Amino acid sequence: MAIIKDPETGIRNMSIHRQQIQGPDQTGFLICPRHALRIYQKYQQRNEPMPVAMVIGAHPAIYYASGFTSSYGLDELEIAGSLLDDPVRLVKCETIDIEVPAEAEMVIEGEVLPEGMVEEGPFGEATGTYAMEGSTEIFKVKAITHRKNPMFYAMQCGAPMTDTQSITGTCIETVVTDHLKNVEGGLDLLDVRCLGISGLMAIVLKLRPRVEGQAKTALMAALSSPYLHPKIAIAVDDDIDASDLRQIFWSMTTRVHGSRDIVKVPNTRIWSLDNVSDIVPGMSAMYRIGTKVIIDATKPAVTQETERERFTPAMPFGYDHVDLEAFLP
Amino acid sequence: MAIIKDPETGIRNMSIHRQQIQGPDQTGFLICPRHALRIYQKYQQRNEPMPVAMVIGAHPAIYYASGFTSSYGLDELEIAGSLLDDPVRLVKCETIDIEVPAEAEMVIEGEVLPEGMVEEGPFGEATGTYAMEGSTEIFKVKAITHRKNPMFYAMQCGAPMTDTQSITGTCIETVVTDHLKNVEGGLDLLDVRCLGISGLMAIVLKLRPRVEGQAKTALMAALSSPYLHPKIAIAVDDDIDASDLRQIFWSMTTRVHGSRDIVKVPNTRIWSLDNVSDIVPGMSAMYRIGTKVIIDATKPAVTQETERERFTPAMPFGYDHVDLEAFLP
Amino acid sequence: MAIIKDPETGIRNMSIHRQQIQGPDQTGFLICPRHALRIYQKYQQRNEPMPVAMVIGAHPAIYYASGFTSSYGLDELEIAGSLLDDPVRLVKCETIDIEVPAEAEMVIEGEVLPEGMVEEGPFGEATGTYAMEGSTEIFKVKAITHRKNPMFYAMQCGAPMTDTQSITGTCIETVVTDHLKNVEGGLDLLDVRCLGISGLMAIVLKLRPRVEGQAKTALMAALSSPYLHPKIAIAVDDDIDASDLRQIFWSMTTRVHGSRDIVKVPNTRIWSLDNVSDIVPGMSAMYRIGTKVIIDATKPAVTQETERERFTPAMPFGYDHVDLEAFLP
Amino acid sequence: MAIIKDPETGIRNMSIHRQQIQGPDQTGFLICPRHALRIYQKYQQRNEPMPVAMVIGAHPAIYYASGFTSSYGLDELEIAGSLLDDPVRLVKCETIDIEVPAEAEMVIEGEVLPEGMVEEGPFGEATGTYAMEGSTEIFKVKAITHRKNPMFYAMQCGAPMTDTQSITGTCIETVVTDHLKNVEGGLDLLDVRCLGISGLMAIVLKLRPRVEGQAKTALMAALSSPYLHPKIAIAVDDDIDASDLRQIFWSMTTRVHGSRDIVKVPNTRIWSLDNVSDIVPGMSAMYRIGTKVIIDATKPAVTQETERERFTPAMPFGYDHVDLEAFLP
Amino acid sequence: MAIIKDPETGIRNMSIHRQQIQGPDQTGFLICPRHALRIYQKYQQRNEPMPVAMVIGAHPAIYYASGFTSSYGLDELEIAGSLLDDPVRLVKCETIDIEVPAEAEMVIEGEVLPEGMVEEGPFGEATGTYAMEGSTEIFKVKAITHRKNPMFYAMQCGAPMTDTQSITGTCIETVVTDHLKNVEGGLDLLDVRCLGISGLMAIVLKLRPRVEGQAKTALMAALSSPYLHPKIAIAVDDDIDASDLRQIFWSMTTRVHGSRDIVKVPNTRIWSLDNVSDIVPGMSAMYRIGTKVIIDATKPAVTQETERERFTPAMPFGYDHVDLEAFLP
Amino acid sequence: MAIIKDPETGIRNMSIHRQQIQGPDQTGFLICPRHALRIYQKYQQRNEPMPVAMVIGAHPAIYYASGFTSSYGLDELEIAGSLLDDPVRLVKCETIDIEVPAEAEMVIEGEVLPEGMVEEGPFGEATGTYAMEGSTEIFKVKAITHRKNPMFYAMQCGAPMTDTQSITGTCIETVVTDHLKNVEGGLDLLDVRCLGISGLMAIVLKLRPRVEGQAKTALMAALSSPYLHPKIAIAVDDDIDASDLRQIFWSMTTRVHGSRDIVKVPNTRIWSLDNVSDIVPGMSAMYRIGTKVIIDATKPAVTQETERERFTPAMPFGYDHVDLEAFLP
Repeated sequence: MAIIKDPETGIRNMSIHRQQIQGPDQTGFLICPRHALRIYQKYQQRNEPMPVAMVIGAHPAIYYASGFTSSYGLDELEIAGSLLDDPVRLVKCETIDIEVPAEAEMVIEGEVLPEGMVEEGPFGEATGTYAMEGSTEIFKVKAITHRKNPMFYAMQCGAPMTDTQSITGTCIETVVTDHLKNVEGGLDLLDVRCLGISGLMAIVLKLRPRVEGQAKTALMAALSSPYLHPKIAIAVDDDIDASDLRQIFWSMTTRVHGSRDIVKVPNTRIWSLDNVSDIVPGMSAMYRIGTKVIIDATKPAVTQETERERFTPAMPFGYDHVDLEAFLP
Repeated sequence: MAIIKDPETGIRNMSIHRQQIQGPDQTGFLICPRHALRIYQKYQQRNEPMPVAMVIGAHPAIYYASGFTSSYGLDELEIAGSLLDDPVRLVKCETIDIEVPAEAEMVIEGEVLPEGMVEEGPFGEATGTYAMEGSTEIFKVKAITHRKNPMFYAMQCGAPMTDTQSITGTCIETVVTDHLKNVEGGLDLLDVRCLGISGLMAIVLKLRPRVEGQAKTALMAALSSPYLHPKIAIAVDDDIDASDLRQIFWSMTTRVHGSRDIVKVPNTRIWSLDNVSDIVPGMSAMYRIGTKVIIDATKPAVTQETERERFTPAMPFGYDHVDLEAFLP
Repeated sequence: MAIIKDPETGIRNMSIHRQQIQGPDQTGFLICPRHALRIYQKYQQRNEPMPVAMVIGAHPAIYYASGFTSSYGLDELEIAGSLLDDPVRLVKCETIDIEVPAEAEMVIEGEVLPEGMVEEGPFGEATGTYAMEGSTEIFKVKAITHRKNPMFYAMQCGAPMTDTQSITGTCIETVVTDHLKNVEGGLDLLDVRCLGISGLMAIVLKLRPRVEGQAKTALMAALSSPYLHPKIAIAVDDDIDASDLRQIFWSMTTRVHGSRDIVKVPNTRIWSLDNVSDIVPGMSAMYRIGTKVIIDATKPAVTQETERERFTPAMPFGYDHVDLEAFLP
Repeated sequence: MAIIKDPETGIRNMSIHRQQIQGPDQTGFLICPRHALRIYQKYQQRNEPMPVAMVIGAHPAIYYASGFTSSYGLDELEIAGSLLDDPVRLVKCETIDIEVPAEAEMVIEGEVLPEGMVEEGPFGEATGTYAMEGSTEIFKVKAITHRKNPMFYAMQCGAPMTDTQSITGTCIETVVTDHLKNVEGGLDLLDVRCLGISGLMAIVLKLRPRVEGQAKTALMAALSSPYLHPKIAIAVDDDIDASDLRQIFWSMTTRVHGSRDIVKVPNTRIWSLDNVSDIVPGMSAMYRIGTKVIIDATKPAVTQETERERFTPAMPFGYDHVDLEAFLP
Repeated sequence: MAIIKDPETGIRNMSIHRQQIQGPDQTGFLICPRHALRIYQKYQQRNEPMPVAMVIGAHPAIYYASGFTSSYGLDELEIAGSLLDDPVRLVKCETIDIEVPAEAEMVIEGEVLPEGMVEEGPFGEATGTYAMEGSTEIFKVKAITHRKNPMFYAMQCGAPMTDTQSITGTCIETVVTDHLKNVEGGLDLLDVRCLGISGLMAIVLKLRPRVEGQAKTALMAALSSPYLHPKIAIAVDDDIDASDLRQIFWSMTTRVHGSRDIVKVPNTRIWSLDNVSDIVPGMSAMYRIGTKVIIDATKPAVTQETERERFTPAMPFGYDHVDLEAFLP
Repeated sequence: MAIIKDPETGIRNMSIHRQQIQGPDQTGFLICPRHALRIYQKYQQRNEPMPVAMVIGAHPAIYYASGFTSSYGLDELEIAGSLLDDPVRLVKCETIDIEVPAEAEMVIEGEVLPEGMVEEGPFGEATGTYAMEGSTEIFKVKAITHRKNPMFYAMQCGAPMTDTQSITGTCIETVVTDHLKNVEGGLDLLDVRCLGISGLMAIVLKLRPRVEGQAKTALMAALSSPYLHPKIAIAVDDDIDASDLRQIFWSMTTRVHGSRDIVKVPNTRIWSLDNVSDIVPGMSAMYRIGTKVIIDATKPAVTQETERERFTPAMPFGYDHVDLEAFLP
């Protein structure tokens, strides 16, 4: 987790970045086109290095907070504080003007140079595949501080499920739920799941459609939220467990009409790490364009009662109360 | 403007409804499938009439507030109060337990029966066309109160622009702007316009795309907001006035590639009053399903500088500072 | 399982039919438009009842054989025999000229009338939903024979997984594998799975594409085999377990480009029991038309080595040989 | 305006070309792939320079005539004559064998070399954007003649509306009206407008559809006329002013069903100056291919009376005859 | 062939109509929605019968002229005259005020009643299939005149090729050629064939594309001409005989890329007799809506020389000048 | 015809290859990506030359057998034997360990080198166009043996129809018929024609659809068979001669609804020689990807009797038994 500060406002930003060791006091420092990049570009305009405190090992609430994409200018450490119901205790770094969590296991203090790139990679990523190798900014280490007998927390990142899917997935679920709150004046939204196993690229909405076509509006919203990651959104109905792939899959075959319920939205921006989407001509692999897909696997709306019943699971008679053991010798 | 109360929570809801006079003490009362319908259905379950205070003539802020679609359970009179920077002064009705703005010109007190429908219509509507005739709930008048020498404010509704487009359009612009705030972690969103002339069904986003494909994500969000009305969303770039149809149209011809920049999302829910969209089979004309359309008329993203320049307007030399009068005799 | 005979050739046909009890000696007898219907229509043309022996409880190989769709005129009891490596021992029925497995637990002898229909249903079906109620042919019971102390084998049929999905699914996998054998002169086909959880409507091909576009040809073949059931076909690559929904799903998000890899083939015949597909106008619910969907979730072909590597799962270092217990206290 | 002659037939061609000054006696001379190019290629085959008389300042009828695209071999000066109801008075040039209007303010006599290209541009164009810089043929000046105290008429060309849109737009309207005359045996065609504000790329047909689907046929014809410019064609109905963007836009939202009324025709030839369309691989920016778009914003046909009425504008009661002043103090 | 007159202008219209005998002095008289219907509707508004002279047996030029669809108000007998290079000699009818060709074999004089319909059909039609039975207007015979020993010319109409395909097909070819004359400022159009074998619904353009995408523009024009009949338009290149189905078919397989060269234009008006197209809801079978199809089977444009050569037919060496007989014994 | 042997199993493979003479003892030897390539790659892995016997002039049954694509590992000479009802008599080559037909006119013995490529081409091909020039493997001649007074059989290959279309076309028809045998449990398949005139790329199925949508399933199967060649599949009904282009074309216009009956399956593998399909990026012209097209020109299914009748050809009365000569003088 990197903590940096907007050089104009002094407001902190905290996000997760990968670092490949390139020498005794140097690593790479990849910056995807999100908030951190905006801050870095401000330092570049001043031709100054950007001070960075890399925090290794902290309270899980801090890790979750770092995964949030909220409005630009909101301090993720405040989010962590509200998750903890107590402000995060902070201490100043020794060589740079950045505050870090007091209980962190280890902190690498340093700065990202305003110029120069190094080759790096490939890296396993939250998609579960490798990010393309490429050039990245340069991080110079100024100091390393740590607790006594620090525990090195190696964040796993790669084929799902690893730490990165679960942390970011939870953040996406929270933010998308909020983004969907008032869609069409309020949905009967019952659950939102960003499937880690999909490399964070599929999101499942569980909702009871109040009128025909409503699920599709909700799916459009789920693919246009603060998060870039989801490119496939699937809606399931109120009788489906949105975290159970078996039930999702059953919905996708028995409740989806291929022509009416699968919609493609081409030429939209896609998350940098989705290797199957096209790189924008002339740009690095961080910039991709592709197709988002909506799959409406809900039943007919509650206004269409008879039609809706056709899609009820045909469960065995007595499934709920029969005690199988009574039948065994 | 009708003020009603949730019979369970007592929270007020304020919205605009049309009433056709059907007798000395009776009018129709059309309820579209939104918040007011939820409340009415609660009264129906109790088999009780729903008390309604129809307010005619009030401070414009109250009219604007009545046009908002926010979370279910938010009192629109509080919104009006915050617009006015002062709570709306209220008085009790005389025959029903509802509060109304103290300065209202006129108030029709009554109740909507839990059963029975009457034929009614056609009505001119905010689309600019006529809503289909159909059956509507029954409103029974219990009392009419008014100021001395009241001024009857006849809200115009019909071919744009009339009062309904400007009130609701402004509300849509506000809510959609808020809904778009953090899309993709924050857009360079410069303006949002819900064109009244489109019968509230087109919305224009002015934004500067930071990366390729970003405008399409924003357009998806604009068509999946709290408001049902927009079915066409158009994105224009930073050099275009989003309220000027001429510039919008010029963008749509010079900056749109038909295959890549026009995307259709079929089978979504559509606003009840869009006569060109299909009625859900077996339902009234209040329930419609149709196709939403995204038109990305922005220039290439700011990352593609050379490509972006190709689309600069070729303004006459000296356009900004030449004084035409100097050339006239 | 019903055993009948072609009245012209005397060749047996064995298939599974549902029967709802409608009186002491009468049940319904639903005939989908497949081989059994052809035979029944021959009896109808002669205006004769069709003798039927319903077999309840038999060797599993016989159940599997009854699930096969092969050439018209192939005796499914011969297939059972070849599965058993020994001809099925048969005995004559007592009231009709049909042979049945000698070890069957119970046999209901009877005949389907050439005329007359009764209302029946709804029934839970192999899709996991209910088949629509409708009219069905009439079965008249002539005799019931059984072993001493017979065990009544109640075939479960309904929300997956039940007996019907596993029996038919296995048959589909076998037949489709054979159907794909020589496609494009031979594929590197590694596994075929008809997912029971999909209600038999999705089939997964595991294959290593030798050249670009080959997986799509294979998927077309998988949706045009002797079996009607699959309407969705998904291809996964050689590193994926085709029976593991998690890996399938991961492939569908990380290896599928929505515009290029999802193809819809509309207006094709669809299995009678897929409630989401349209009923042919003027026909019973047995006749449906809908859209088949191809999803190519393979990696780039083996000829594109560099591109192919981009999609390798990024497994944790040492995943294969690390012993987790060595790290635990 | 350049006047040239077919070297085989001697027939004149008049068209508008841009010239960038490149030296005391040299300019560029861009030739789009139309009639003038055919003539120039004939001179090239003879390896001769093409004599050209550039006319600056003439009767507006002559400017309009130069904008016409008619059959190859029709002298645009004859068109001007018929517009004027009198033949255009002509005089011989002094250094080349070309006739020019006698009242022209100024004439630049010269020739375009059969070989050699120069770099040039960018230029503001009739689209309202800049044409790409590129190479162009070379024009050598031989003489400049002019009236006494000539007035230099600088034809404005750039962001609409300038002279080029109004001149060419009028020509397009005339020719397309003629092209549509007998479509389907004759349409109820009421107006044709080539909107200058669209950079000449959108054309609006006002027509009353006699039968369903007729407007789409008319729109196909409007995009396959003698003129290349229009790539978007919009049909509006008999109650709409085809020159009023507000009414066009209202039609596009209230009378268009996205799935049924917007049709894309991809991979057609597109006007050279439409920067958003793709350049043909291996060719200059003069050769483009793209997508034409049809938008049918008419009401249901006159045969569907009831349906048609649904789309009538809901104008305020008494709109036509109320005198607003009577209501003002 | 029926000759009628516009009751307002007195201008003649001549067109081919089918008549089923329904009694000694009565036949049906089907009027498709074209010019004749406009005239009949004028009589209906006056509540007068429409006088009609049915001409049976005349000079072929008159038959061809009757097949032309030109501007409303052009007398087809004048067209016949110009085909014959001599005005058609006319004589007055005996009971109605209509002129008929003097050399006609037989003339049935009568009138179509302004009211009343009779059931009729089915009829074989120019499509080669049967027109749906339906109701038709009533023709009352007033007199039959004829030459001495007249020859009854029974116009064949049905599965192609019969008289109706060849007459109308030739007219379509002529009119479409004219309609295409100036498309894109003039095409290299080499032949136009309306294939009778297609039931007049396919038209083939032979042209040499001067620039990429030009054939598609031409095909759009061919499907939006004065004639309704063609719904499929195919472009072939300069080395193909446009009347030879074998060469057309070879072009369609070797020169067509399914995704790029086949374009569908749905929801357009379609010829009344195309049974596969949908009837407009609420209308008779005379009103249909369907999909037009463009197939561009030309080679790459002449500007792409290398690419164009790839599609040259690989004819056997010496194909043009070898004398096969020299090789035979 | 080249006969080679799998170096591991010793099983023969026989296929047709083109050879361009490049020197006294050298020719090219093009290997498309099919069975022969698999065998050659095995020799390459051993770094050994592949012995090849080129047979020129043999019994037609042997030529037909060489055109079959069956399971890998099936000896085409055995197929020839079963066609002849007698094993093909074989003799050993003189310089290599390969058997060849004893009655062959001529045999070129040689080997294909494991390394090295030469430039070659262009060649006329079975498509009727030229294959792109390119690099090909090298064949070294070791010996030429022949009968006394051998007849050189020059296999014609080029614009259809030549030998290659008729030989391969017949093989395709046989194999596809077999592949379709049990589709949907058995079709009413009446004929299969691979049209030589289409360059082997179109296949026509004649079938009587038992239920709606069945023809489309059959067409999918026809485009996913052991043969790569067909990319267009057309279904015609039971009253059409599948080898008569006129009747096929008539079906395509009168029985095809463009939107419902033409389906495109993009991004599938396409036959190497289809010049209009795209070359896989980075690969030789042997590897192509493109769009397969399904055209369902059958009538409505036999279950829709009334609808089906609408499409009956309207043949002239008495067409079957009238003797035209009886009417001639």
